[in-house]
Amino acid sequence: MLRTRRVVLAGLGSVGGAVLRLLDGRAADLRARHGLVLEVVGAMDSRGGAVAPGGLVPGALVAQKSRGTSVAELPGVGRPGADVDALLAELAAAGAPADLLVVAGPGDLRDGGAGLAAVLAARRRGTGVVLADKAPLVVAWDVVTDGTVPVRYSACVGAALPTVDLARAVLVSAAATRVEIVLNSTCQRVLGDVERGSTVAAAVAGAQRAGVAEADPSADVDGTDTAVKLVVLAAALGHPVPLRAVATTGIRDVDPGWVRAERARGRAVVLLGTAVPGTPWALTVAPAALDGDHPLARMGRHETGLVVDTDVAGRIAASGRHHDVVPTAAAVLRDLVLLA
Amino acid sequence: MLRTRRVVLAGLGSVGGAVLRLLDGRAADLRARHGLVLEVVGAMDSRGGAVAPGGLVPGALVAQKSRGTSVAELPGVGRPGADVDALLAELAAAGAPADLLVVAGPGDLRDGGAGLAAVLAARRRGTGVVLADKAPLVVAWDVVTDGTVPVRYSACVGAALPTVDLARAVLVSAAATRVEIVLNSTCQRVLGDVERGSTVAAAVAGAQRAGVAEADPSADVDGTDTAVKLVVLAAALGHPVPLRAVATTGIRDVDPGWVRAERARGRAVVLLGTAVPGTPWALTVAPAALDGDHPLARMGRHETGLVVDTDVAGRIAASGRHHDVVPTAAAVLRDLVLLA
Repeated sequence: MLRTRRVVLAGLGSVGGAVLRLLDGRAADLRARHGLVLEVVGAMDSRGGAVAPGGLVPGALVAQKSRGTSVAELPGVGRPGADVDALLAELAAAGAPADLLVVAGPGDLRDGGAGLAAVLAARRRGTGVVLADKAPLVVAWDVVTDGTVPVRYSACVGAALPTVDLARAVLVSAAATRVEIVLNSTCQRVLGDVERGSTVAAAVAGAQRAGVAEADPSADVDGTDTAVKLVVLAAALGHPVPLRAVATTGIRDVDPGWVRAERARGRAVVLLGTAVPGTPWALTVAPAALDGDHPLARMGRHETGLVVDTDVAGRIAASGRHHDVVPTAAAVLRDLVLLA
Repeated sequence: MLRTRRVVLAGLGSVGGAVLRLLDGRAADLRARHGLVLEVVGAMDSRGGAVAPGGLVPGALVAQKSRGTSVAELPGVGRPGADVDALLAELAAAGAPADLLVVAGPGDLRDGGAGLAAVLAARRRGTGVVLADKAPLVVAWDVVTDGTVPVRYSACVGAALPTVDLARAVLVSAAATRVEIVLNSTCQRVLGDVERGSTVAAAVAGAQRAGVAEADPSADVDGTDTAVKLVVLAAALGHPVPLRAVATTGIRDVDPGWVRAERARGRAVVLLGTAVPGTPWALTVAPAALDGDHPLARMGRHETGLVVDTDVAGRIAASGRHHDVVPTAAAVLRDLVLLA
């Protein structure tokens, strides 16, 4: 029994592009293992969309993006200036409504931006949503997760490491006493370089050259990205806290001498997000020196992870090692399969 | 909306007793968080059972066990010599059939023993099953998991660490290239003591005195317990392999000089279970020296864990720290809640 689900991809940057390649490359595997065909019927970049009720050719979309041009310029299927709402409307009018929407554009933490607009469009049409964009969750958690349409967001908190599912599973029968995350790859890399003698600025520049850090590294280096992930994780565990209530200190002004002195003592400085249960949960993000045997200290600098301390289930730790954006795309694909 | 589920506990040893105490101690929490009342209507130990359609008093069962007497001797509710089938029949005849059965007795790897008989009795009556006894899974995987009744078995592979759920989540969209487990607490403790100068025999005796190792430590020390967990994990991932096909070497004859020499080089000897995908999957259990930065080497000796190497989701690692049997009971409770 083969099920076909029509997918629209909103956002064709590094994550969206990787999702497209994964959908293409694993099509046979999805059929064999899950009896599932995920057909890309729409795709959006910053300049518009492309739509085809009978299915777009993923390879053609990838090729178009790698030429640096917009999918909106593709002959026949391109829709310059169209938004997600218009794409979904065209598909519905053609009798081939989209089943699933992937939102993977750049996030806008002020008002949710195009990502939130896309989620709201999907809600109106009953289209399931997979988020790689965290902003809609932070800006409008209650609306996005109210169950009007199914929503998953594995890729937002820990890439391929299923942090939310893991923490939820542990906490079905135990109470958290503390949750800790180190989930920003750029900060991990930068702090590793600082340990080895670099300045923060030079390490950030190196991360940018390596394609790990963004052109504007503020969200990573100033701790916002970690705070956002902490907010999403806490909300997923039933404890929504507004982003502005997270006391956040980044690593921009971290003292390299301190980082090296801690390393010399067998400890590791990480950018740590901490959630302490209470009413409400208290969330903080700040550089912290952890004992060498702490699960988040003994990770390599190419790893990110989380720790859940509990009352009756002991301490649970998990980490993921990844070198590029492919595991994030794998998390999006997991969510697509689980929603399909 | 409060839902009530009637639970029968087969096996009141260390794990079963801890489940009983957890059911009692977290009753208010289960009501508040899950809208759930888990009512113990039957309990079994090696000498018989106790049954009460209106609910047994967990405290009375705990007290009876702590006096070293059987619940079968409890006035009114005791049923000397009764088996699970008889208990389930009595409950059904009283119009209060059991919804869930916990099987937590000592496992019998030859033919599944009383644990498998209990599972089969539950199947005949449509009672959901939570296993802390691994033997029924190893002896009769296809029958036990054929979907006739819902079955969960978190406690069998990694105690409170949800190894099966985690690995399954990661592998929804990725392919495993290798799965590794270090899930035997006794071997972790023994090898830690050997690192610090002990002989294997002295370390095993110490683990027995500390209540970590069984009176008969063979299943742990000879690798059977790890092989069983590997078999269950592989089967849960869709690749059943018979236990006899697992090449198994334990730690009884491990060379203490080797263990210490590896430690001096920054490496750790662990009892490693390895699953390598293929047709069929190749499962092995043997002492192995891992590089110090391997996630299963850098764990403390009071931790156990697993690593899943994948094609597109990177390397995922998870570990749990626990000092007694309570986290295993927490895993049983999780499964009860998820099935309820």
